[in-house]
Amino acid sequence: MSNDNIDNSPTIHDSELPKLKTEPYRIDKAKNFRLRDFRCDDSANLEHEKVGKAILKNNKKRMFKLQERLYAEDKQSLLIIFQAMDAAGKDGAIKHVMRGLNPQGVQVTPFKVPSPEELDRDYLWRIVKALPRRGNVGIFNRSHYEEVVITQVHNLLEKSQIPEWLLGEEVWQQRYEQINNWEKYLTQQGYVVLKFFLHISKEEQRVRLLDRILEKDKNWKFSSSDIEEREHWDDYQRLYEEMIQNTSTKHAPWYVVPADKKWFSRTLISQVVADTLEEMDPKIPALTKKECDQLAHWKQILEDQVTE
Amino acid sequence: MSNDNIDNSPTIHDSELPKLKTEPYRIDKAKNFRLRDFRCDDSANLEHEKVGKAILKNNKKRMFKLQERLYAEDKQSLLIIFQAMDAAGKDGAIKHVMRGLNPQGVQVTPFKVPSPEELDRDYLWRIVKALPRRGNVGIFNRSHYEEVVITQVHNLLEKSQIPEWLLGEEVWQQRYEQINNWEKYLTQQGYVVLKFFLHISKEEQRVRLLDRILEKDKNWKFSSSDIEEREHWDDYQRLYEEMIQNTSTKHAPWYVVPADKKWFSRTLISQVVADTLEEMDPKIPALTKKECDQLAHWKQILEDQVTE
Repeated sequence: MSNDNIDNSPTIHDSELPKLKTEPYRIDKAKNFRLRDFRCDDSANLEHEKVGKAILKNNKKRMFKLQERLYAEDKQSLLIIFQAMDAAGKDGAIKHVMRGLNPQGVQVTPFKVPSPEELDRDYLWRIVKALPRRGNVGIFNRSHYEEVVITQVHNLLEKSQIPEWLLGEEVWQQRYEQINNWEKYLTQQGYVVLKFFLHISKEEQRVRLLDRILEKDKNWKFSSSDIEEREHWDDYQRLYEEMIQNTSTKHAPWYVVPADKKWFSRTLISQVVADTLEEMDPKIPALTKKECDQLAHWKQILEDQVTE
Repeated sequence: MSNDNIDNSPTIHDSELPKLKTEPYRIDKAKNFRLRDFRCDDSANLEHEKVGKAILKNNKKRMFKLQERLYAEDKQSLLIIFQAMDAAGKDGAIKHVMRGLNPQGVQVTPFKVPSPEELDRDYLWRIVKALPRRGNVGIFNRSHYEEVVITQVHNLLEKSQIPEWLLGEEVWQQRYEQINNWEKYLTQQGYVVLKFFLHISKEEQRVRLLDRILEKDKNWKFSSSDIEEREHWDDYQRLYEEMIQNTSTKHAPWYVVPADKKWFSRTLISQVVADTLEEMDPKIPALTKKECDQLAHWKQILEDQVTE
């Protein structure tokens, strides 16, 4: 498999590329975290889109190589979670950052409105079912975090089948704790968990939604519910902030990704993913001494089978 | 649906039946718990098998009625977990205690050796997938507890795909904590969790395994691995004890069920299940005022449709 022809940005030699630092966007303990401290139109130290795209291209090469080792090692998994307002660029990020990977080792799961079968269980049931295999990269387009955000915005618990005596004031704090416990458990099983919040401004969302109406070939992406959800903007921002405050942990940090410039958000995501895969340092399994000894034997067998 | 003809034991009038107390067998905090303090051949205050069977029959009637309400309510679930040595009577208990229930609301899942697909995920993955729907009774014949018992006895972690740097000394305490967290989460979602450990003596197991060899129509239940596992008897007892010490909680208690007398273990299990369903107190949903008002309307429509 080759990942040539995937990015057509002009070539900049890798050694000329500036290092994109990801720490400023990483939240791993966050009692004082405030969303407004983060700019939506930030693009770090990168002067130009062209530089960003070159870094993205380079990161995708790194990801592709590391993914092969991850798959061969077959022990660790990388779980990548995307949360954001509509039109913040989740689908685009998945498409542009992940398409260089070998799809045999990637599973993307978009979480939509839960089905009756899913509502009939606990809220993590459908999430767990979608966990990636070992050696794979799993991508969640939306996730269990909907259960502490949209569920609060629209009071969905009231309409749920959860017994009403379990729905006291403590329910959201309970959920944060449940989620933290579960993600910690995953990391103890060999999963590495990355969480991206795509941080878009209200004005940029307006422009993009308008675009979906005005441009014919983007019409399919438009839904009138986007306009309705937009009316809850402040609620969503408050709840995303609360989510990041309560679920940013050492084992499963949030990254707040400036999303007004698509090229920058994609570059930053690729940087975090490539760096993380590098830290995971997957190793291609070595043959045992016994297997090595047998190689000569099997080689001989195959050589003897030459068709004359 | 009727559950007549299911139990042929002689009728004893319900009012004559002694009350079987379940508290002595319930462990909900257990740092000092010791398995040897519990007798395998205990049969409580019941003088006679006949009395036990009459109680069982009565409990099954209660379970059947309560199950209908649970199903109609569609909010809570009852999850029943069985763990035990081979031949302790798990299958028999499921058959004799549960067969009076409406199978539409019951899901039994036997957990065998994990498949490659299951080994490729975290150990709770296959367990979560098998969770019962709301309004249902789920029965696990073996469970995630295998992961702290047989996995220890046979050092299965060494052969697993879990990265070796996650397999330090703390791994078992971590697992107890993971399991407790998960079960607590379930109870916060509307599940009620009951855990039965069927406590059989080594001698009684010997007799039952021998029976499987000697009696032709029991041969299919015999497996030579039963004999091998029996050689690890002391390890298993120690680890079951440790399991009960570490995972007996208020939200998900263990019941240590004396299992040398099959009739008594079944009676006791039925008592716990029926009492628990009663405490859950499922309620058949009432119609809303609006629906009540419409009933007369729909009644009229159906009456007007009389074929002449």
